[in-house]
Amino acid sequence: MSDYVVAVDVGGTSMKGGIVTGSGEIAATGRRPTGAEGGPAGVVAAIRSFVGDLADRGAAALGTGPAAVGIAVPGLVDDATATALYAANLGWRDVPATDLVPLDVPVLLGHDVRTGGLAESVLGAGRELSDFLFLPIGTGIAGAMIIGGAPYGGTSGWGGEIGHIPVFPDGEACACGQIGCLETYASASAVGRRYSARAGASATAEQVAALTADGDPVAAEVWEEAVEALSLALATYTLLLDPSAIVLGGGLAEAGPLLSDPLAVRLAKRLAFREAPPLRRAVLGVGAGMLGAALLGWRAAGVPDAGASWSPDVPRTPVVS
Amino acid sequence: MSDYVVAVDVGGTSMKGGIVTGSGEIAATGRRPTGAEGGPAGVVAAIRSFVGDLADRGAAALGTGPAAVGIAVPGLVDDATATALYAANLGWRDVPATDLVPLDVPVLLGHDVRTGGLAESVLGAGRELSDFLFLPIGTGIAGAMIIGGAPYGGTSGWGGEIGHIPVFPDGEACACGQIGCLETYASASAVGRRYSARAGASATAEQVAALTADGDPVAAEVWEEAVEALSLALATYTLLLDPSAIVLGGGLAEAGPLLSDPLAVRLAKRLAFREAPPLRRAVLGVGAGMLGAALLGWRAAGVPDAGASWSPDVPRTPVVS
Repeated sequence: MSDYVVAVDVGGTSMKGGIVTGSGEIAATGRRPTGAEGGPAGVVAAIRSFVGDLADRGAAALGTGPAAVGIAVPGLVDDATATALYAANLGWRDVPATDLVPLDVPVLLGHDVRTGGLAESVLGAGRELSDFLFLPIGTGIAGAMIIGGAPYGGTSGWGGEIGHIPVFPDGEACACGQIGCLETYASASAVGRRYSARAGASATAEQVAALTADGDPVAAEVWEEAVEALSLALATYTLLLDPSAIVLGGGLAEAGPLLSDPLAVRLAKRLAFREAPPLRRAVLGVGAGMLGAALLGWRAAGVPDAGASWSPDVPRTPVVS
Repeated sequence: MSDYVVAVDVGGTSMKGGIVTGSGEIAATGRRPTGAEGGPAGVVAAIRSFVGDLADRGAAALGTGPAAVGIAVPGLVDDATATALYAANLGWRDVPATDLVPLDVPVLLGHDVRTGGLAESVLGAGRELSDFLFLPIGTGIAGAMIIGGAPYGGTSGWGGEIGHIPVFPDGEACACGQIGCLETYASASAVGRRYSARAGASATAEQVAALTADGDPVAAEVWEEAVEALSLALATYTLLLDPSAIVLGGGLAEAGPLLSDPLAVRLAKRLAFREAPPLRRAVLGVGAGMLGAALLGWRAAGVPDAGASWSPDVPRTPVVS
């Protein structure tokens, strides 16, 4: 068997890919547009071509084709049939994993956030934890619930939609059609949008964080509301799932203690009869999805414990060239 | 091996026990006060004596001692060490299961709500479901999350506290010390208490339900607020855990469609991009805990699939004489 897999993490607008060896070495990486504007057939063709090109690079460097392929995709995934059922931003429905791969090798498909959670679980901030929440806070918010050592997607793969739980039941309308969703207060986009609306000047979440640190009162108010919304969602998650930790990732977590310090205080205040789980920072960054896809690839190749012996330093190397 | 186990479901003020055969026949049942007013040592002695008496009845009727004992208790349970760690209403801390049994037979201990959920899962409304929520609504509210076919208690056994998630973040103070908990709006006690406070006349939840059905405006308002709180909690549960059904039990579920019809409507309204899971009625009633304890007893006896062949009619027989 050849000693590498091809791994691809498909996002809404771009995808990241890599060649990952059995010892966790990232032999090559790449990035490419998803081509969503070309419709679902264009996305499928783009992924297929990307996988093929990465396999060609692997063959040129390592002498053989890949042992398997792992792919992380947004939307809804049926693990049992390895089919990408649905993704609003890519427009596709019922795409079999084999359509995404131009080679005759095993392939495993995973949900993007849960695949990132798998990587944090095996290689990252959740390495020794069997039950935790991985919460990347970016353009949107979705969580990967790690339960009994594995990402859990619910009955039909729709689990982990913590970004759309009603934290303020009479609150603001969310783009999803519901009222008071966490995401409409606390995603990176929401923080930028809500500041811009109040200050009359456009700003990104990163800029709002910087303004908050500088004492800007409008920015501080928006930041505080995001933190309060997050504390409610995490109190709810804690009371229901009793996780051993909450691993914060995504763009908003880049703010570090500016986010985690007040969040820890507010979370503890919302919990009267139990302690709050510790908040940890995700360590794999934007590479989590691709590394998780590599783990899926190794599972497809029949090596389910791949990753266990990989060096913890591996994830800290830049994974996207 | 003898063909029966002793099962006991310990509540705050009374406990229910039974003798349950390998084919699911309930050969005897009994009920006894928990004796919590006598302190933790009194409770332990009362359980121990109850188990011993049930075993004596079994030996008299069936010729041998029990194969094993299963016990459901409130509070916090450590499954790994079979220890009842903590229960506020019983006052105990760190009671080994063996202290509760005067016989030298295997014993398994379970959390009361999760043990009831186990029974609904194996014998009741969740018989063919691997992932669902069992939600008994009584004096308090706690849920049993059935995940991958088994009750899930979280990292430390504190999972399933859906009664204390903040459904109205700026709402009423809960007895637990938190704000806006589901339980403070929607438990049977809360419904009675909130009606009584507004109407100036004492009423039970059952009476509030009857008044609501009769068009009493104060009762209808209290009932509607309970339903709204439940719909928020169940929307949150659905978005996080993606269950295939929600099984309603406990005293409040006795109201039948008066509860489930408006709840289904409000739950669907809170979910924009996904369907609501079906609401089902629990079928085992107050006997769920004792039947679950019997299943634990059979597992302790080395018969993990006990219950699979039991007649679905068994649970419908009155289990408390």
